[in-house]
Amino acid sequence: MKIAIIGAGYVGLPLAIALSNFHTITCYDIDKKRIKNLKSGFDINNQHSKSEILKKKINFTDDKYRLLNNYVYIITVPTPISDRKKPNLNMLRDASILVGKTIKKKSIIIYESTTFPGCTEEFCIPLIEKFSKLKFNKDFYVGYSPERVNPGDNVNTLENITKIVGANNPSTLLKLKKLYKSICKSVYTTNSIKIAESAKVIENTQRDINIALVNELGKLFNKLDIPTNEVLKAAATKWNFHYYKPGLVGGHCISVDPYYLSYKAQQKKYSPKLILSGRRINESMGKHVAQKTISLLRKNKIKLSTSKIAILGFSFKDNIPDIRNTKIIQIFKELKKKNTQIKIFDSIVSKIEVKKLYNIIVYDFKDFKKFKYDAVILAVSHKEFLRKLTFYNKYYKDKKKKIFIDVKNNYSSYNLIKNNFKYFQI
Amino acid sequence: MKIAIIGAGYVGLPLAIALSNFHTITCYDIDKKRIKNLKSGFDINNQHSKSEILKKKINFTDDKYRLLNNYVYIITVPTPISDRKKPNLNMLRDASILVGKTIKKKSIIIYESTTFPGCTEEFCIPLIEKFSKLKFNKDFYVGYSPERVNPGDNVNTLENITKIVGANNPSTLLKLKKLYKSICKSVYTTNSIKIAESAKVIENTQRDINIALVNELGKLFNKLDIPTNEVLKAAATKWNFHYYKPGLVGGHCISVDPYYLSYKAQQKKYSPKLILSGRRINESMGKHVAQKTISLLRKNKIKLSTSKIAILGFSFKDNIPDIRNTKIIQIFKELKKKNTQIKIFDSIVSKIEVKKLYNIIVYDFKDFKKFKYDAVILAVSHKEFLRKLTFYNKYYKDKKKKIFIDVKNNYSSYNLIKNNFKYFQI
Repeated sequence: MKIAIIGAGYVGLPLAIALSNFHTITCYDIDKKRIKNLKSGFDINNQHSKSEILKKKINFTDDKYRLLNNYVYIITVPTPISDRKKPNLNMLRDASILVGKTIKKKSIIIYESTTFPGCTEEFCIPLIEKFSKLKFNKDFYVGYSPERVNPGDNVNTLENITKIVGANNPSTLLKLKKLYKSICKSVYTTNSIKIAESAKVIENTQRDINIALVNELGKLFNKLDIPTNEVLKAAATKWNFHYYKPGLVGGHCISVDPYYLSYKAQQKKYSPKLILSGRRINESMGKHVAQKTISLLRKNKIKLSTSKIAILGFSFKDNIPDIRNTKIIQIFKELKKKNTQIKIFDSIVSKIEVKKLYNIIVYDFKDFKKFKYDAVILAVSHKEFLRKLTFYNKYYKDKKKKIFIDVKNNYSSYNLIKNNFKYFQI
Repeated sequence: MKIAIIGAGYVGLPLAIALSNFHTITCYDIDKKRIKNLKSGFDINNQHSKSEILKKKINFTDDKYRLLNNYVYIITVPTPISDRKKPNLNMLRDASILVGKTIKKKSIIIYESTTFPGCTEEFCIPLIEKFSKLKFNKDFYVGYSPERVNPGDNVNTLENITKIVGANNPSTLLKLKKLYKSICKSVYTTNSIKIAESAKVIENTQRDINIALVNELGKLFNKLDIPTNEVLKAAATKWNFHYYKPGLVGGHCISVDPYYLSYKAQQKKYSPKLILSGRRINESMGKHVAQKTISLLRKNKIKLSTSKIAILGFSFKDNIPDIRNTKIIQIFKELKKKNTQIKIFDSIVSKIEVKKLYNIIVYDFKDFKKFKYDAVILAVSHKEFLRKLTFYNKYYKDKKKKIFIDVKNNYSSYNLIKNNFKYFQI
């Protein structure tokens, strides 16, 4: 089959590689640099090796005319949120218009982009109809198969997971099922697009709420002077407890998808109070970490304006270079307000991208040793940060005031007391 | 060892039976009828058989003087909430005073009752000190081991689970560990009472929040005309999704414990918004079910004042007789306001207890066949209710207007459409 993939990012690239074993693949992106990189086998996201990218002849292109004459079109463009936390459907609109202008009769279009229930039928399909002058379910067919890409996870890859495919009529559904069955371990069908859209958006919403709960508990246990991580570890010995850890919730999925669902709810005059309450807690955590740092500095009589703070990690998640929607920036901005001197260390992220997106400088972790600090904030659990605590011991200005903020609850408080840190965990 | 257990309920009885294999057990309760029943081997809660109860000679008693001269005292009294959703510590107070008046030097007191972090040290121990005139950690010792009884669950029994034990000093902790190691599969120690108290109360809080989330989603998907159970089934194919179902949250644990935690939080001027938001949603579900029933009756032009409604189930949970804090009463009261005629069927609960606690009549399910209905509300999934839907088909007044409310999402919508119900699921 001739298949075109629109969007060569975290979702599109693995899909293109998997499908290229059985089909002729054109992989399109508007980002010329990304296409140039992929043509030479380089994936800035570290998801795929050169040999994987170049093994089968995927036709990487930024030329939309190369999209003509395909049979299946799979849309994997990002669906971010605006500054006001509303769905930004610009890329989904552009992709739908592009497909509308490109397809011929009998084409199948599959959306993989996460969105709110109803978006495909109410927003995307009308655009395709308008620009193709063809009729949905008569001249062309549409399905929805939510992406389940988990960056940094080598176990739950496209090949190893169950993939949902949804369509509003049985014959389209069967075609989608066959297509994905060839590349995924198993396929689960839903007999409407809406059900598939809903399933995806609630997965990340559930995760968001569960992290929000442990964040709320963490804030409470701070006040009660009870070590949160020991409570969670104990609770996790119950057969049906879900072991989440407190922390920042960034990235392009968990911190975004609940707003898509809320948007649709509010359209229907339904206020999803719990979901939004969870969002508020998780959005507050960067500020919370900064405030706790400042209060520890003050308690230890360290002058804020001459204080030196190291932030370890800048990506939104452990061991991956993705900086989209990272909440470390909240910690940084909040500490900046108090005129503290901050250095951020992260060897995995692209320093150029950080500069471009956030206008701040990130250092390699090997440079950490060059300075001395009043406070160290372990914000992301990259492997290279998780050395013995005795490593950090050496790099404090004052040996009696070693403030260490363990955002991801990596260490048990017992070890820390032993090491005499002024210690804080969420 | 001579061990006294204060409270012979859901928690105390299994504990007494398990410990009686190794120790001399006195099991005390203020409820004379309960003690009389247990002496004859009858457990109204259906947790234990006559032979289990009578196998070892447990000394069941309502005479507090029989509590003298024991070494270990385990308190398993209920910790409910008041009408205003505040902790009702009356029974914990009475038990602590009783123990205070009873113990001698070197006694160990273990609390199993669920409570808020700090309660044992701030509320219970001072009472014991006052009434015993002995000093904590000098003359007597206290530990906390949260109960994890799950009524109706034959897998996660006391013998099969990991039990948390917590104490503030290593020697008491070791004694608790040894004691529980003899009866539980494994023991997890925490080196403070507070950590153990916190672990217990967050377990049920997490469950409450997760059910609240699917309830909120269910309400939303109702508005969007998307079948909730099919969305949840699809989402559950993701490796890290937790499959909860919408429904009523009653009973003495999940619907109570979050209020204990909130109480402590509010004492510390911390408002646990997410937890309380979850509680509000779950508290609203009985009314929601009733309103949906009424709106379906109206839509089908059935006069409310002559309408006949059957509610299937009255206990707070499937296949157990426990009626404490059942939310079915919310459905009943809400429907009563509209002058509908309601019959409740439940063969498992004690009709006498229901009459006593709620002043309403419950019928045996075998009497269901004697009447015809406009609407059937399947509120609890007792096994005997989960027959083929065709069973209910026969008992409607009007064959064209068969309203069926599936509170626990037992049936897939496909089957229901086929059967031509006017159907509603959360």
